Amino acid sequence: MAEEEKNGTTMIVFDGDLDKAMASFIIATGAAAMGKQVTMFFTFWGLNVLRKENVKSSSEKTFMEKMFEKMMPRGPGKLKLSKMNYGGMGPKMMKKMMKNHNVSSLQEMIEMAQDLDVKMVACTMSMDVMGLKEEELIDGLEYAGVASYLSEAEEANINLFV
Amino acid sequence: MAEEEKNGTTMIVFDGDLDKAMASFIIATGAAAMGKQVTMFFTFWGLNVLRKENVKSSSEKTFMEKMFEKMMPRGPGKLKLSKMNYGGMGPKMMKKMMKNHNVSSLQEMIEMAQDLDVKMVACTMSMDVMGLKEEELIDGLEYAGVASYLSEAEEANINLFV
Amino acid sequence: MAEEEKNGTTMIVFDGDLDKAMASFIIATGAAAMGKQVTMFFTFWGLNVLRKENVKSSSEKTFMEKMFEKMMPRGPGKLKLSKMNYGGMGPKMMKKMMKNHNVSSLQEMIEMAQDLDVKMVACTMSMDVMGLKEEELIDGLEYAGVASYLSEAEEANINLFV
Repeated sequence: MAEEEKNGTTMIVFDGDLDKAMASFIIATGAAAMGKQVTMFFTFWGLNVLRKENVKSSSEKTFMEKMFEKMMPRGPGKLKLSKMNYGGMGPKMMKKMMKNHNVSSLQEMIEMAQDLDVKMVACTMSMDVMGLKEEELIDGLEYAGVASYLSEAEEANINLFV
Repeated sequence: MAEEEKNGTTMIVFDGDLDKAMASFIIATGAAAMGKQVTMFFTFWGLNVLRKENVKSSSEKTFMEKMFEKMMPRGPGKLKLSKMNYGGMGPKMMKKMMKNHNVSSLQEMIEMAQDLDVKMVACTMSMDVMGLKEEELIDGLEYAGVASYLSEAEEANINLFV
Repeated sequence: MAEEEKNGTTMIVFDGDLDKAMASFIIATGAAAMGKQVTMFFTFWGLNVLRKENVKSSSEKTFMEKMFEKMMPRGPGKLKLSKMNYGGMGPKMMKKMMKNHNVSSLQEMIEMAQDLDVKMVACTMSMDVMGLKEEELIDGLEYAGVASYLSEAEEANINLFV
């Protein structure tokens, strides 16, 4: 494929902190609004961004999977800041300051990304390792592994690891 | 634009820790010295790298903006290490060891980057959210948002999120 | 060089946490298996991924270099998690859960990468600053600086900072 036609943007969302998640969705929605085909590949802690707040734990989980489930933050409302978290005060302040400046919340950015056809992919290997089930994650996701990410990145000209 | 002509390097400097800031400036100055057009886009905590050490707080700031102003490190001399910070001992040791090996300090790297015409852009949305004003940041910066970053990244063949 | 021929993938492995190291090797081995020329450039804390577990400290080291040597984790078996480390419990749990799902350990991934001819480069400037000697790192590495990384990245179409 000729390079001139490359029109993709991919992001590996590894981290799962509120601030990094916001940065990745600001880039994703910005790029999608400019007509780019955007793929976000959520892996490791990044999967926490996609968790629903209230899901009953599957009875098939092992003891360790249940521990991980309890200890990891459930969805955008529960994420920490990578810095200045101060036991949850930091995220509250950040959210307030974002609201004061009419910046969308992370929840709103996720919806906006879905409206703009940003492809959101959950890494199946990470889900296996962490014991996360499809029903624990929000709707509208695709499920795939690293090979799928790599072929998208191949066709993109902006590839970021966040 | 034909891909063969792409000659840019962009970096999103998100993190604002001393070690990551150094890594980004080492890459930036290296690429600029090789004749590449380099753009660094400073966002979120990355803005702290650009802060002046002594600026009087604007009286227009809200209470929370003043708190953020006080709690966030002011400029390259105050940044922490992402690991082994040990309450400030780590950065001191790191700086000493860099000096012993004739590695430039972060301050020097920033000046070098400006001499090499590295374009340093402060993210206006992050500045708004965190309450940082232009007069609190070093001179010679450009001010722009994510759309500006994306069009630069489009024309670059190395794009990193640091 | 025409863009169509670009077939490289580069990664700057900066962080040196177990989870990020695994993510980088999963990408590296995946890309190499798909026929890409992969280069991993280990810098700062990322060098810890390459350390041998038992090496006698060189008598030429300064006091601070010896302190860094002692405080930084020695090799893949000693790395922390970037989140949920819980004093070492997190990595143990993560390793157990990976084993349960037949995911290779980081040690195995490193060997696999070497079998697949992934080029692993240790950043000489970081080694100098941190006082790490070649004999402290695993075999089969190349040694180079940022200019070398940049020319590889120039010829690659996927470039990540992990």
